[in-house]
Amino acid sequence: MSTNKLKYLLQLADNALILGHRISEWTGHGPVLEQDIAITNTALDHLGQARSLYQYAAETYNQLSENDKTDFFASPVFLNHTQPVTEDTLAYLRDGWDFRNALLVEQPNGDWAYTIARSFFYDHYSVLLYTALKDSSDATIAAVAEKSLKEALYHHRWSSEWVIRLGDGTEESKARMQEAIDERWAFSGELLTPSEADNTMLKAGIGIDLDALKATWFTNVEDILSQATLNIPSKEAWMHEGGKTGTHSEHLGYILAEMQYMQRAYPGMEW
Amino acid sequence: MSTNKLKYLLQLADNALILGHRISEWTGHGPVLEQDIAITNTALDHLGQARSLYQYAAETYNQLSENDKTDFFASPVFLNHTQPVTEDTLAYLRDGWDFRNALLVEQPNGDWAYTIARSFFYDHYSVLLYTALKDSSDATIAAVAEKSLKEALYHHRWSSEWVIRLGDGTEESKARMQEAIDERWAFSGELLTPSEADNTMLKAGIGIDLDALKATWFTNVEDILSQATLNIPSKEAWMHEGGKTGTHSEHLGYILAEMQYMQRAYPGMEW
Repeated sequence: MSTNKLKYLLQLADNALILGHRISEWTGHGPVLEQDIAITNTALDHLGQARSLYQYAAETYNQLSENDKTDFFASPVFLNHTQPVTEDTLAYLRDGWDFRNALLVEQPNGDWAYTIARSFFYDHYSVLLYTALKDSSDATIAAVAEKSLKEALYHHRWSSEWVIRLGDGTEESKARMQEAIDERWAFSGELLTPSEADNTMLKAGIGIDLDALKATWFTNVEDILSQATLNIPSKEAWMHEGGKTGTHSEHLGYILAEMQYMQRAYPGMEW
Repeated sequence: MSTNKLKYLLQLADNALILGHRISEWTGHGPVLEQDIAITNTALDHLGQARSLYQYAAETYNQLSENDKTDFFASPVFLNHTQPVTEDTLAYLRDGWDFRNALLVEQPNGDWAYTIARSFFYDHYSVLLYTALKDSSDATIAAVAEKSLKEALYHHRWSSEWVIRLGDGTEESKARMQEAIDERWAFSGELLTPSEADNTMLKAGIGIDLDALKATWFTNVEDILSQATLNIPSKEAWMHEGGKTGTHSEHLGYILAEMQYMQRAYPGMEW
C-alpha cells in the first residue's frame, strides 16, 4: 500500500518535473517575447507542482519499513539508508529506471506545434486529474490538487488556444499543427491507462478512476480539434506505454544527464 | 614550463576527445551504412588519439610540484591530491572551464554538410600538426604524432572527398555545403592561432609553429574548395576564439553532462 502510494506520487511528480524541464528549454527561444514568458511561467508552475509532490513522496519514502525501502529504488544513493531522502534526492539522484513519468512528457520539444501538442494532451489530462484528486481521501494530495488545478486550467486554455490558432491559421501552420497532433497522439494514451499504482490508489480512495475520465478527455480534446479544423486521430490507435512503470524512451537519459549534472558533479551543492 | 606542456597536451587531447564524441553521435544515423561505419571509425581514431595524449598528460600532471598542481585545475576532484590522476580523471571529472579544445570541435553536428565542414577544417589542420609534431624534441609526443598522422591523412582525404562530392553535386547539396563551409569558417581560425602554451612549447622545441602553417592550411583548403566549385571564405574574416584557454560556447556543457554522467553517477565504475 505505502509503496504503491509512493509509486503513485512519483507518477504525478515525475510528469510535472520532466514536462517542466522540457518546457523550460524554450526559455529565451519562444516565438515572441510574450509567449516566451508565458511558456516559461508554465514551466515554473510544473516545477512548483513537482516540488509539492516530491516533498510528500520523500516523507512517504522515509516512513517506509526498511524492508520496503530496500527494493524500492535501484539507484545507488538509496542503497544505504543513512540519510533521510528529500525532494532533491528524488529529483537529482534517481536514475532513469526509477522515474515514473509518462513517455509523452519526455519527448523532445520539436517545433512550436509539437511543443503545443504535447502540452495540449497533457493539460487536458491534468485538469481532469486535479479536479478529481481534489476529493482524494488523502488530505495532502487533495490540497496539492486544489492548488494545481488553478494552474492546470490556465495551461489547458493556453495550449487549446494555440491549437486553434495554428490549426485554423495558414496552410502551413495547419499542416504543421496536424502533423504534431498526429505524431504526439500515440503518446497520449498512457496518461489515461491505469498502472498497478493507479488501480491500488483508486481502491484505497486516494487515487482516481482514469478509465472513467477517458471519454471526457477525448470529448474535450475532440472539441478543440474541431474548432481548430484539424482531423481527429483515431481512438483505436496503438499507444506507447512504459514510462509509468520505469521503461523509458532514449530521451529521458539525456534529460537527466543535463538536469542532474550539477548535483552529480558537486554533491550536496546548494544555491 | 611543465604547466605549459600540460596545457599543450590538453589542447591536443581535448580536441580529439570532443570531436570524437561529437562524431560518435552519428553512429547509427549515417546517411548510408558504409559512411555510418566510416565516420564511426573516425570517431574511434580520435578517441584513441585522445587516450594516448591523456595518458601522457596525466603523467605530466602527477609529476608537477604540489604548488603547480594547486592552481592548475578548478574542478573539485583535483583540489585534494590524494589519488594519482589518470586518463579517466581528465576525461570524466574535469568541468568545462578546465577543457582546452578549440570551439570548432564542440559545435553541434548540424546536418551531414555541417559535420563534414567541421571535420574538413580540423583534418587539414591535424595533418599539418602531426606532420610537424613528428619532429618534436619530446619523444612521447613525437611517437603519438607519428601514429596519429596515418589516421589524420585518411580523415582529411575522406572529408575532402565529401566536400567535393557535395559541393560539386546537385544544386541543393552545393547550397547546403556552401552554407556549412561559410558558417563553420569562423571557427577554423582558432586552430591555427597560437595560445600562450603553443608559443612556449614552440620555443622549447616541443611544439610547432602554427603561424608558419597557416598559409599551407589555407592553400590546401582553398584547393579542395575550388575542386568542389565552392566559394572560398575570406582570409580576413573575424574568428571565434576562447576554447584553447578554457572559455567555451554553451555546447560544451551539454557534451560533458552526457559524456560524464556515468562516472558522476557511479564514481569509479569500470566496465
